[in-house]
Amino acid sequence: LGELVFAGLGLFDELDMSLRALEEVKTADYVFAELYTSIMAGLSLENLEKIAGKKVILVSRKNLEDENGAMIISKASSAKVVFLVPGDPLIATTHIDLRIRADKMGIKTRIVHGASIISAVMGLSGLQNYRFGRSVTIPFPYGGIISETPYNVIVENKARNLHTLCFLDIDVERKRFLTVREALQSLLTVEKNKSQGVIDLDVLAVAIARAGSSDVKVKADRVANLLEFDFGAPPYLLVFPAGRLHFMEAEALIRFADAPEWIKEMVG
Amino acid sequence: LGELVFAGLGLFDELDMSLRALEEVKTADYVFAELYTSIMAGLSLENLEKIAGKKVILVSRKNLEDENGAMIISKASSAKVVFLVPGDPLIATTHIDLRIRADKMGIKTRIVHGASIISAVMGLSGLQNYRFGRSVTIPFPYGGIISETPYNVIVENKARNLHTLCFLDIDVERKRFLTVREALQSLLTVEKNKSQGVIDLDVLAVAIARAGSSDVKVKADRVANLLEFDFGAPPYLLVFPAGRLHFMEAEALIRFADAPEWIKEMVG
Repeated sequence: LGELVFAGLGLFDELDMSLRALEEVKTADYVFAELYTSIMAGLSLENLEKIAGKKVILVSRKNLEDENGAMIISKASSAKVVFLVPGDPLIATTHIDLRIRADKMGIKTRIVHGASIISAVMGLSGLQNYRFGRSVTIPFPYGGIISETPYNVIVENKARNLHTLCFLDIDVERKRFLTVREALQSLLTVEKNKSQGVIDLDVLAVAIARAGSSDVKVKADRVANLLEFDFGAPPYLLVFPAGRLHFMEAEALIRFADAPEWIKEMVG
Repeated sequence: LGELVFAGLGLFDELDMSLRALEEVKTADYVFAELYTSIMAGLSLENLEKIAGKKVILVSRKNLEDENGAMIISKASSAKVVFLVPGDPLIATTHIDLRIRADKMGIKTRIVHGASIISAVMGLSGLQNYRFGRSVTIPFPYGGIISETPYNVIVENKARNLHTLCFLDIDVERKRFLTVREALQSLLTVEKNKSQGVIDLDVLAVAIARAGSSDVKVKADRVANLLEFDFGAPPYLLVFPAGRLHFMEAEALIRFADAPEWIKEMVG
C-alpha cells in the first residue's frame, strides 16, 4: 500500500529542508515538488535533485488544481510519494484539498513540517508572537480594483493594539511579485478613500525581503521612507506594528531593522 | 571575529533541524543548546551530539537569564557559536534579549529558521492561517489564581469569527506540563465566574499532542469529550475554532482530527 507525505522545503533554498524531510525523500518511490505557492529564491530543481539523489517531478498549479492532483494521488495509491512544498507544507488551502482527496481514496497521509514565514517574521522583526492579530494578503489590483480587506484588517488589529502580518501577493509562474512599494501604495489609496488616518506616510511599518537567506533585509521606518527604499529581489512581506511597542520590540527594531530612534516614543 | 548563529531545532527530535542548521553546527567552534522553552520529546543530547559530530553544551534557564548568557556571549566575541533552540529560534523573548546583548557587544548575529508549532498547528488541524486571531498561553494556576486572559482572548477572537491558538504552559526543568484537561478546566472555571456562555462543555475545541512526531494526535470534539480523552505524553496545545468554519476546515477536522459530523452545521 502507498502513502503520501507532505514535506516542507522551508524558506530559501534546498538546505532549508529538515534532515527528516531528506530521509523521507531518500526512501520515497516518487518525489514531487511544487514551487508556485511561494518563491524559494535560492532553490533550483537541479540542486534539489542532487541532494535528493533522485528525480524530482515539478508540478504546476495547473497540474495540481485543474487535473486534481490525479498524478500524485494515483502514484500514492500503491507507492511511497513525497510531495515537497515551500515553507510548512499544509498552510496552503490547495494542499489541504489534495490531502483530503488522498484520504478519501484510502491513502495514508503524513506531514513533515518545515520553517515558515509565519514564525520567521517574528524572529526577524523582534515583534512578539502573541501580539500578532490575524494576517492578510495584499493582492494584486484585479481589474484596477484595489481590495479594502488588507486595510480593514490592519485597522481592526491596530484598534486592539496588535501587529498585522501582510503577505504580498505573488504569481510565480508569471514571475510577478507585488513589491513593498506597490503594497504600500494600495493601502494609501484605500486610506485616501476612507480618510480614517490609520495608514499614512508617517506610520511605522516593517518590510522584509528574502527571509531565510543570508541576504535577508529587514527595514523598519515611516511608510514614506519605505516607499523609496530599494529592497532588491523578492520575496517580500510587510508588518504593520501595533500603535504601542514593548520596549524589547522597539530595541530589536532599532538594532536589527535599522528603525529610527523615534520609535522609542511608541513604547508603552 | 566571532559570530552568534541562532538555529532552530524544529518540533520533535534531532532530525527536525534543517540541513543548513546542521551545516552551521559542523563549522561552529562552540555549540550550545537549550531545551527548556519547549519540550522536544524525541530529542536526546547524545543523539544531537552524534549528528553534530561535536560536543553540545546544554544551557539551563538559570544560565541564560541569571548569568545573562555571559558564557555564550563571551565565546561568540571571538569564535563562531551556534545556539540551538527548539522550534524557530527567536520566538521566545529570552533569546531576543540575548541577541540584543550580543549585538551591543558588536557580535554579528544570524538566524537559521526551524519549523514552529505556530505554522504546524494550521497544517495539522486544517484550520486556515488567515483565520487565526492572536494566540495566548494558558498558564499554570499561580498561587491558586486562574488567569482570565486566555478566556478573554478566545472570547475576543470568537467575536470576530477567528480561531485561537492556545499554548499550554510548560516547566521543562520541573517536568511539569499543563494538560489538555487542566487547560480546559481553567477555562471552564473562568466561564463559571463570568457566565458569558462562550466556553462551555458543548463548544468545539481541537487538541494536539506531540506535533511533529510520527505519533502526533489531533482530536477535535466538544470540550466535554476532550476532558475525558487520553492524549498520552506531552507536549500539548489547544485551538478554539471560530464559531463558523470554512467547509474545507470542517472536512479536514472530520478526516484528520476525528471530529464529529455535527461540526458540518458550523460551516458558513
